[in-house]
Amino acid sequence: MRPIKFENGALRLIDQTRLPAKTIWNEYNTYTEVAGAIKDMIVRGAPAIGITAAYGAVIGANAVETEDKDVFFNKLDEIIGTLKDTRPTAVNLFWALERIRRKALEFKNSSISHIKRVITDEAIEMDKEDVDTNRLIGANGSKLLKDGSTVLTHCNAGALATCDYGTALGVIRAAHEKGRKIHVFADETRPYLQGARLTSWELKEDGIPVTLICDNMAGFFMKQGEIDACIVGADRIASNGDTANKIGTYSLAVLARENNIPFYVAAPISTIDFNILSGEDIPIEERNKREVTHIKDICIAPEGIEVRNPAFDITPNEYITAIITEKAVLYPAFKDSIGNLSGCCF
Amino acid sequence: MRPIKFENGALRLIDQTRLPAKTIWNEYNTYTEVAGAIKDMIVRGAPAIGITAAYGAVIGANAVETEDKDVFFNKLDEIIGTLKDTRPTAVNLFWALERIRRKALEFKNSSISHIKRVITDEAIEMDKEDVDTNRLIGANGSKLLKDGSTVLTHCNAGALATCDYGTALGVIRAAHEKGRKIHVFADETRPYLQGARLTSWELKEDGIPVTLICDNMAGFFMKQGEIDACIVGADRIASNGDTANKIGTYSLAVLARENNIPFYVAAPISTIDFNILSGEDIPIEERNKREVTHIKDICIAPEGIEVRNPAFDITPNEYITAIITEKAVLYPAFKDSIGNLSGCCF
Repeated sequence: MRPIKFENGALRLIDQTRLPAKTIWNEYNTYTEVAGAIKDMIVRGAPAIGITAAYGAVIGANAVETEDKDVFFNKLDEIIGTLKDTRPTAVNLFWALERIRRKALEFKNSSISHIKRVITDEAIEMDKEDVDTNRLIGANGSKLLKDGSTVLTHCNAGALATCDYGTALGVIRAAHEKGRKIHVFADETRPYLQGARLTSWELKEDGIPVTLICDNMAGFFMKQGEIDACIVGADRIASNGDTANKIGTYSLAVLARENNIPFYVAAPISTIDFNILSGEDIPIEERNKREVTHIKDICIAPEGIEVRNPAFDITPNEYITAIITEKAVLYPAFKDSIGNLSGCCF
Repeated sequence: MRPIKFENGALRLIDQTRLPAKTIWNEYNTYTEVAGAIKDMIVRGAPAIGITAAYGAVIGANAVETEDKDVFFNKLDEIIGTLKDTRPTAVNLFWALERIRRKALEFKNSSISHIKRVITDEAIEMDKEDVDTNRLIGANGSKLLKDGSTVLTHCNAGALATCDYGTALGVIRAAHEKGRKIHVFADETRPYLQGARLTSWELKEDGIPVTLICDNMAGFFMKQGEIDACIVGADRIASNGDTANKIGTYSLAVLARENNIPFYVAAPISTIDFNILSGEDIPIEERNKREVTHIKDICIAPEGIEVRNPAFDITPNEYITAIITEKAVLYPAFKDSIGNLSGCCF
């Protein structure tokens, strides 16, 4: 269930705005088209937009026809700048583009055609790494899910949010593959409905039992004792563990703590922003009001109504039981557990 | 903005499933049609369905052609039974129908035509009382809202949920009428979208500033310090203050307490069920899955997906700052403040 394919120098993306009704693959041949696809949420999910942006940079760089290194690197900076400007919250976007830029600089004394080849290889490598990483996250996290558990998830941190397998859904998949009976409650996740359209579809396709609920029902089921654990993905994790994720995550975390339910964040280390001390430093994207007032072409609100549409929120570290990464399951105090990670990996 | 009109022996209801796109009045001439309108949420909101059911009983009773008292009263019981069976959670439905039944019994020695007249007058009186009650709730509650406040509300406890003016929105209207600047954040309230379709429309029509948000954004704005108070209506309040209200209310109350924001319930005393000790005794309606999977005719989820759709939840009294009634603003311990009310009013 890969949402991203790089073939013959072009990028193909499943149009996630059309799922689950239609599975349509769009093709992108320029970096500006790729930037548009990220902005318009044709592709979404922190790891997936990182890799998509990396391929976008490669497509952009490969199209630069010059023998002048300065021209090439200036143009590469412009391409990367355009791709960075698409969405502000998920750090994987910046991480992936930085990795492409650093790789290019590492080979700055090589020929331009060689630089093009190494950054193409780097993007393909990052794509592969992402799937391996998700399988490790799954293996690490699956230990936390007992047989017979009902697990609540929010948004889509699945195969469709990554290069395959998923982070939060990767943990669920890994537990399911080990033969444990896991039942998933999927929040529909307004306004973009990633839970209704993507998570429930992914899990249903994989034969993992899933029940769709509205976001405002999660607290009810927690209080009823029907939820054993919550697992979500992340768009950016500060070095103290504060986590930016899809709007509504903070509310779930508060409700989970109130009901003594463990609250897990599953994310690759590339989602950790070691440069920021806390969630206060994470910019929150506000998207257009039409996402809230319309479902496809149907208007569900009075014309001209004022709308707020923050796409993410910050869950303070105190509400998080553990952060599941490919290296290890991190526990509080996250400042220390994340700090140790920083020392060993970067 | 009355959603209910009783004229020439027939009931007219605004079709609330069509708002705000279209304002369509449906006419009902039989009690079974009225029962259908309540079930299908043509009319909704605890006080509104109470009065609608009362009119339904009157329409049903007036159509009984007999001179035999036993036949008449048996038929009246059947009519009331059918109307009671429409929705299980809101207690106003049972309260209103009981009031009609008691009034009929009070005049059991009169002629059937006289009984028909007194129950018709009783329903009209209850309708008028409801508006007076809401204005008193508004006056009592408005003292709690400071000038410049931003108030979060959920679902629609407005004119459309009552015979006019509203309960939670009545409090906001009363503060607004006193010249206080009140800005309302309205949760869209999935799955039926009462906030998007009804609350934001009502307030916009009245010139009260309103911002529409998705349900899962409420916690974010609370944590940001943008919300000064929460006000919701109620479908049933137990004698200890536990409150059944639209699904999502419990989550808001937990989030409000977590963020030190007062959480108010505004409701007429007819919403208090003095017969039950706690919220555990309140039945929660589960509605059909199509409400979650479809917006009008658009399917937003995979075909055949499993769905849960509880229409209400219970907010334990510990999360409620005060209950605003027409008699007084009740504070904890609610067991005592509600108990005193029971002594003086019933």
